[in-house]
Amino acid sequence: MKPVNVQFRDDYRAVILQDQTVLPRETRFIELKTPEAMHEAIFSLRVRGAPAIGIAAAFSYAVTANRLDVADTGALKEALTAFADYLNSSRPTAVNLSWALNRMEAVTAVNLALTLNELRQRLIREAIAIQEEDVDMCRRIAENGLTLLQENDGVLTHCNAGPLATSLYGTALGPVLLANDRGMKVRVFADETRPLLQGARITSYELDRAGVDVTLICDNMAATVMKNGWIDACFVGCDRIAANGDVANKIGTNGVAILARHYNIPFYVLGPTSTIDFETATGDDIEIELRDPEEIRSKWYAEPQAPASVKCYNPAFDVTNHDLIAGIVTEHGILRAPYADSIEALRRTLFDKTTD
Amino acid sequence: MKPVNVQFRDDYRAVILQDQTVLPRETRFIELKTPEAMHEAIFSLRVRGAPAIGIAAAFSYAVTANRLDVADTGALKEALTAFADYLNSSRPTAVNLSWALNRMEAVTAVNLALTLNELRQRLIREAIAIQEEDVDMCRRIAENGLTLLQENDGVLTHCNAGPLATSLYGTALGPVLLANDRGMKVRVFADETRPLLQGARITSYELDRAGVDVTLICDNMAATVMKNGWIDACFVGCDRIAANGDVANKIGTNGVAILARHYNIPFYVLGPTSTIDFETATGDDIEIELRDPEEIRSKWYAEPQAPASVKCYNPAFDVTNHDLIAGIVTEHGILRAPYADSIEALRRTLFDKTTD
Repeated sequence: MKPVNVQFRDDYRAVILQDQTVLPRETRFIELKTPEAMHEAIFSLRVRGAPAIGIAAAFSYAVTANRLDVADTGALKEALTAFADYLNSSRPTAVNLSWALNRMEAVTAVNLALTLNELRQRLIREAIAIQEEDVDMCRRIAENGLTLLQENDGVLTHCNAGPLATSLYGTALGPVLLANDRGMKVRVFADETRPLLQGARITSYELDRAGVDVTLICDNMAATVMKNGWIDACFVGCDRIAANGDVANKIGTNGVAILARHYNIPFYVLGPTSTIDFETATGDDIEIELRDPEEIRSKWYAEPQAPASVKCYNPAFDVTNHDLIAGIVTEHGILRAPYADSIEALRRTLFDKTTD
Repeated sequence: MKPVNVQFRDDYRAVILQDQTVLPRETRFIELKTPEAMHEAIFSLRVRGAPAIGIAAAFSYAVTANRLDVADTGALKEALTAFADYLNSSRPTAVNLSWALNRMEAVTAVNLALTLNELRQRLIREAIAIQEEDVDMCRRIAENGLTLLQENDGVLTHCNAGPLATSLYGTALGPVLLANDRGMKVRVFADETRPLLQGARITSYELDRAGVDVTLICDNMAATVMKNGWIDACFVGCDRIAANGDVANKIGTNGVAILARHYNIPFYVLGPTSTIDFETATGDDIEIELRDPEEIRSKWYAEPQAPASVKCYNPAFDVTNHDLIAGIVTEHGILRAPYADSIEALRRTLFDKTTD
């Protein structure tokens, strides 16, 4: 597998992206040369998934540096700052977007003594480094998660945390894709994940394309495939992990965890340690985004499937209690209960090196 | 509330049905005068729900008796037998359809000594009796279920077992509609019920039309509304109940029962005693119908939402284990655990009167 979703064109004067908005009907790659084109691609979710957005922004920064007709590195820096401010406005709440642009800006700022061409080369290398770090992180999560699987295991997953949202392997899908690369047979059952159908549109597409044995089910069929004895482990991604191990992820994740507990199936959360919010004590402190009722009532349909006068409640995420989680698989290993302790130990390792 | 879904036209020469295929977009009543029109209405699911199909067939039988131009009751009987055979072919697996037609045929057979007009009147009365018995049964289930509710309670329901599928009140929705009729406030959360969306298309429509406070959710949001403390009881219908209390119902029901157990919310099944299959020992003996994968992949959508090469697993029903069920609400009262005993006691009451 290659990190195919974000690439440079051979001459480094365009970013090549897989357009996620035409999935699963079409596998289409688009060439983005201008800031305006990348802005539109991020805004319109042609590229989605926090790590993928950050990588695409960094690549676009380097391409823009190559295409700008300026006299010296000072002028380049000034023009790139304007570019970064502009691109940042495409999805203001995407943390990885501003993080990647800030990192590229810092590289520019400390390398103004280079020639124009040297600086442009340096920025290409930095963008590639950002992608390679993500590849490395995904691979380590996948390796750690793979230790939880055996030949012929059945895995249930919910929503999408795969290669298109990251750079390679993804998080929740990583162990399965790595197993597949190594010739190990694993069967995956993918919840379609209403209302936005990421499981149908993206997860089933990614696994099918990789040659993994995947079966799509409606969310309300998860209990049945578990009861049938077809599921040996549940793997899901995460949007935010609290200091006590409570996990916010796509709506429906908590229900899967409860069903898994009922059927004695281990439920694992997979994600980078950057997803852990050490400042958030418990899941109760995580605010849940409520989205447009029309995503339930009418999106995807030729006509609404419920009367306009009926209320719809549409939370985008839910919180899974830490006591339902068998392990949190990160690039630094698998965290186990009691999570307050294992997460605090991780925090000390990551940030308190001076106290060692 | 009136049993509005199946009625005679004032002259008893047409059946008036609410067309369920145009819901929720339109509340449309259609007049059916001929056997062919009723055949099409049943085949195309303009009328659906086992009791409603039986009632519609009986009404159509009486209308046909009124419209047939025959010389005597013998000729009428012969023509009505041909009609019954024809209508029975519209949905061969619908037990209520053949049951209602057989009952009408038996009434004809034992009343051949009447005049033509007397026999026609007798058949109208029999059709109305079939509907009134269903109304009475629904009302008794609703009354029994209402004893489980208190003012301001929140109820979660799955799929549809409401008035349109029966004659009045329905089964699972009965207690809520009866509460509403009596000015008692109850809030309902309706699972949309993928893949066929009966919860969105029919349940939310029926409750909204009756003035009940209803909120539509995706199936994967049930755990969240329970966790939020909004649900005091779950009410679902049933397709078949085994002798040990295991219940087959629409796919997703079992998952709701497991979530309810996790959050200590009582989970009730509502249905007539005719749904109990005393010959089926446990839920393991109930065969589950597998349906077309396209119901998941492409139905309702302008284009498929998963690749054509991806498998879909689409069971129409699941089985909820009896130990997850707080009570089975029937027209003869509420059955409680241990169900093997309470169901056997009911069987003796219903069938073994001679041994008393």
